[in-house]
Amino acid sequence: MKLGDLGEDRLLNELLPRLSPGKAVVAGPRDDCAVVETHDRGKLLVLKTDSVVEGVHFLRGTNALDVGWKAMMRPLSDFAATSAVPQFALITLMLSGKTDVAWVKQLYQGLRTAADRFRVRIVGGDTSSTPGAIAISASVIGFVERDRWVSRGGGKPGDDLFVTGRLGGAWKRKHLRFIPRLMESRWLTKNFSIHAMMDLSDGLGTDLPRLARASKVGFKIEAENLPLSRGAKINDAISKGEDYELLFAVPRRENKRLQKKWSRKFPKLPLTHIGSLTSQSARSLSAAADNPQLKGGYVHFQQPS
Amino acid sequence: MKLGDLGEDRLLNELLPRLSPGKAVVAGPRDDCAVVETHDRGKLLVLKTDSVVEGVHFLRGTNALDVGWKAMMRPLSDFAATSAVPQFALITLMLSGKTDVAWVKQLYQGLRTAADRFRVRIVGGDTSSTPGAIAISASVIGFVERDRWVSRGGGKPGDDLFVTGRLGGAWKRKHLRFIPRLMESRWLTKNFSIHAMMDLSDGLGTDLPRLARASKVGFKIEAENLPLSRGAKINDAISKGEDYELLFAVPRRENKRLQKKWSRKFPKLPLTHIGSLTSQSARSLSAAADNPQLKGGYVHFQQPS
Repeated sequence: MKLGDLGEDRLLNELLPRLSPGKAVVAGPRDDCAVVETHDRGKLLVLKTDSVVEGVHFLRGTNALDVGWKAMMRPLSDFAATSAVPQFALITLMLSGKTDVAWVKQLYQGLRTAADRFRVRIVGGDTSSTPGAIAISASVIGFVERDRWVSRGGGKPGDDLFVTGRLGGAWKRKHLRFIPRLMESRWLTKNFSIHAMMDLSDGLGTDLPRLARASKVGFKIEAENLPLSRGAKINDAISKGEDYELLFAVPRRENKRLQKKWSRKFPKLPLTHIGSLTSQSARSLSAAADNPQLKGGYVHFQQPS
Repeated sequence: MKLGDLGEDRLLNELLPRLSPGKAVVAGPRDDCAVVETHDRGKLLVLKTDSVVEGVHFLRGTNALDVGWKAMMRPLSDFAATSAVPQFALITLMLSGKTDVAWVKQLYQGLRTAADRFRVRIVGGDTSSTPGAIAISASVIGFVERDRWVSRGGGKPGDDLFVTGRLGGAWKRKHLRFIPRLMESRWLTKNFSIHAMMDLSDGLGTDLPRLARASKVGFKIEAENLPLSRGAKINDAISKGEDYELLFAVPRRENKRLQKKWSRKFPKLPLTHIGSLTSQSARSLSAAADNPQLKGGYVHFQQPS
C-alpha cells in the first residue's frame, strides 16, 4: 500500500494510537498544539531541532528503523552536548505519495524506540507530502538545571580535552545506530566541573576549532593519542564526521579523579585525554579554523602559536 | 551566488547576526541547543511544528518573503486555536545547493518579520541540503494559562458556532499573507467562556467535523449565513482550505454579549454566528464526517439527526 492512497488523516490514525499521552501531556498530537506541564522555575527550557534527508543523511533503501533511530538521536546528541534532559519531541515527516506505508510505520517505530530509550515523549508532529526526497525532522524540548548547563564557550587555557568512545568509525553503520552520550554527560556535570562540551557530529577537525573559537582559546592535540575505531586511521578520526561522541574540557586538576571514576562508572566506554586548550587570540584562531588544511591531516592539526 | 558555493557554516553566519539573543535566551542558534528561561509553574508549555514544501504549499518562483511569512504563521495559527502565547521558534530549512542565497535571505526576512509581529524569538534551527524540493519547517514553543487553554474537544450541545473573518478567499494570495488570529483568540479567552476552538486550515467542511468529533457532538450550519470573501461562493467557503480563521463554540447565553463587545473591539474583522452544536452520538457523527459528500456542497453540510 502506498502513502498516497492512504491520506494524511488516516496515516496519523495509523500512527497515533502508539503515542499514548501521559500524565504530563495535557494535549498530544491529535490537537492543534501539544500542551505539556512546565518545569520548575530553577530550570532552563532547552530546545533543539535536527533533520535527516534521503540522499544526504541516509540512502534510499536504508532500513527505516535505522533512519527513525538516527533522526531522533541526532538532536538528543545535542542534548548530551548541553548536559540537558530531553522530555518532549515534535516530528515532521516529508514523504512522497509513493512511499510505502510499511516503511513509514517502521520509521516511526525507529523514532519511538529511540525516544523511549531516553524517556522522551513524542507529543506532536506534522506530515507533509513532498515531490522530492524523504525528510524527517525532530524538534526536542527539555530542561537543564542552571548550574549544570554546558556550552561550547566555557573552555579555559590549560583545560584538558577529553573524548568519549572511539573515533572514525561512522562508515561502519555506527552513524545509524549510535547512542547519544546523555547518561555520560549528565554524570559528568553532576560530578565534575565541565568547562565546555560539544558532540562530534562533523568530525574532530571541524568541531574542535568550533569549541576553541567559542571559548576564545587555542588547542593542542596529540594526534597519536586519538582513540580509533577498529580499522580507522588517524585521518578518519579527524576528518570523518558522525561519531556523536562527546568532546569536553575540564580543569587539569580534575584529570586524575575523572579518569579513575570514569573507568569505574563506564568500564566499557573509553575516555581519552587527547590534548589541551591553550591561550591564543581569537583572531589567529579564527584564521586557522578556516584553513581547509585543518581537515586534511593530523600534521596540520595544531593551532599555530 | 548559489547556496552550494557558500556552505552551511557561512550561510549561518550570514543569517545569525540578525537573530540577536535577548534577556530570556541563555543560548541561541550558535550553540548545540537553544536554552531559554522557563515559565511560571501556573502555566502550560505549548509546542507546535508545521512546514511548507515547494510544489505543495507554494510554487517555485513564489516571493521568498511570502514563503517565510507563511512558514512562520502556520504554526502560530495553531497557537491562536489553542489561545496560547508563542515565545520561541526553531527553524529547519531544507535547501538545494542550487538555491540562490538572496532567496534564502529573503526567506529568513519573511520568517523574522512574521515572528517579530507576535514577539516570537527564533532561538535555533537547522539547515540541511536536499536533492529534492525546498522545505521550511517551524517549531514554535510557548505557554498558555491553565484556565485559558482551549482544545477542539470542549464543545457542548447547544453551543453557538462562530467564525472570524471571511471564508473561501485563500486563492487570492491570502494563504500567503494571512495574519493568525492570536490577538482575537487571547481576547476571547480573557473575556468569554470558549468551549472549543480551532483554526480553519483545511476548510470548514473538513475542520468542523473534526471539532464536532473531538467534542462528541453534532452540528448544524446555516450555509447561507457563511461570511464569504469577495468573489467566493458558498462551496469555496466550505471546501477550500487555508483560511486560517478561527472557528469556535460558546454557550448560547454568551452570544449577544460576544457580538456586541466584538464589534467594538475588532470593528474591521467580521464575527459571524454560523450555526450551533447539536447532541449526537459519536458513532453517527463519525460516519457522517467520513462521507466525502460533506466536502462537496452545502446541501449535504448538515449532520443527519
